Amino acid sequence: MDVSRLKLTIAYDGSNYAGFQWQPNDISVQQRLEEAFQKIYPSFKRVHGSSRTDTGVHARGMVAHVDVPQTRSEMNPSKLRLAINANLPEDIRVSLIQRVSSNFHARFDAKGKQYRYSIWNHPAMDPLRRTQAWHVPRKLNVSLIEDAASRFIGKHDFESFANCRSYKMKDYVRTLTRCDVQRRGSLLTIVIEGDGFLYKMCRGIAGTLIRVGEEKLKPSEITRILKSRDRRVAGMTAPAHGLVLWKVFY
Amino acid sequence: MDVSRLKLTIAYDGSNYAGFQWQPNDISVQQRLEEAFQKIYPSFKRVHGSSRTDTGVHARGMVAHVDVPQTRSEMNPSKLRLAINANLPEDIRVSLIQRVSSNFHARFDAKGKQYRYSIWNHPAMDPLRRTQAWHVPRKLNVSLIEDAASRFIGKHDFESFANCRSYKMKDYVRTLTRCDVQRRGSLLTIVIEGDGFLYKMCRGIAGTLIRVGEEKLKPSEITRILKSRDRRVAGMTAPAHGLVLWKVFY
Repeated sequence: MDVSRLKLTIAYDGSNYAGFQWQPNDISVQQRLEEAFQKIYPSFKRVHGSSRTDTGVHARGMVAHVDVPQTRSEMNPSKLRLAINANLPEDIRVSLIQRVSSNFHARFDAKGKQYRYSIWNHPAMDPLRRTQAWHVPRKLNVSLIEDAASRFIGKHDFESFANCRSYKMKDYVRTLTRCDVQRRGSLLTIVIEGDGFLYKMCRGIAGTLIRVGEEKLKPSEITRILKSRDRRVAGMTAPAHGLVLWKVFY
Repeated sequence: MDVSRLKLTIAYDGSNYAGFQWQPNDISVQQRLEEAFQKIYPSFKRVHGSSRTDTGVHARGMVAHVDVPQTRSEMNPSKLRLAINANLPEDIRVSLIQRVSSNFHARFDAKGKQYRYSIWNHPAMDPLRRTQAWHVPRKLNVSLIEDAASRFIGKHDFESFANCRSYKMKDYVRTLTRCDVQRRGSLLTIVIEGDGFLYKMCRGIAGTLIRVGEEKLKPSEITRILKSRDRRVAGMTAPAHGLVLWKVFY
């Protein structure tokens, strides 16, 4: 049977999921997407994601690819989006479906990603942001954060900012093309863009930048921490709910 | 016993409340606030709100006043904010407490209010905004909405935009000083500012503006609808969860 390959752009509120990727004993975003496609195409097998996201992390621009049967009465992408969304829980939505060539691969073809980490920097949390920003009550020094953030840009060994996983990584070298902070009132947004990310790397960077903002760590120490290749010398892993996978670049 | 009058600025996620004001058989924001103050001041009686908000409507800048006992060991406003917030559910926060003179009244002294109504105008809802924006999937004509919005500015009889309440209103005349729409990507925000608002008036205006955006109503018809003083000729009442009480002016 002939198949059509489709590129999906997916947004989700990660609060109720054990991350994007399929988990044996937990509900993942991938599982909910596969169930929705199976309602439309009973023979449907897999959603191939570009990235994993951790438990509780959100997404606005997750990308995945799927193969669907090519039938004479093929649904156009907008119709299919409507049908899939009608079968998804309201915390997951496919925002765009595009036809792509059969050799497009969401993970292998990804050139880079952008993540955004949100911090509410005010003595009282904003209840309307409580599931999507980290509450840091003490006044942060934003110019120190800016200085420190700029030191992450470039090609570095990020072992100090990656949490160990069950399996050993071969290579911790990644290139960040952007790392900056935007302030709008009490809302700080750290924007991180790079060719690839290690497990919990963005949250390790965010946690370390907050320590700099609290003046517990100097911006100049970032370079030393990177060189140490030791997770214990960097700042804490910032909580998952502040992080959004914003965009995947191809 | 001497008392100190305090002005509170309050933010809440209205999803789980029957509005701000105390209700006999339902949980209100006011009740939760009063319970929190009673934990700190056992003799505490009442939170006096500047406005009601309907079931499900949110707030960032609700204002209220309270009287607390003047004791020798009086807490400063920042300490008190911390103590009150520790006794509130996480969907309600007091963002600011200020000492005011004993004749300040949150409701009678209010000079005006700003509301913001959010619409997600895209075929697929943004799951990260699903509790704080109305999903309007069909493409809206924003310049028609802008034209229509401007016709609400000024002193008008808003009976056509107010839902009937159990009791009869004497006066439906209100003055709007601002009514415009801001677009940022798929997010439309209608900003409405005025000296006072009738029951469900903002949501009536938002629902009517969306009908204009859908090209089912002409901007020029706004004036006729205002003149008719008949709720049935205006557009639908937009859903509560898109509305935020943004600010109260004094």
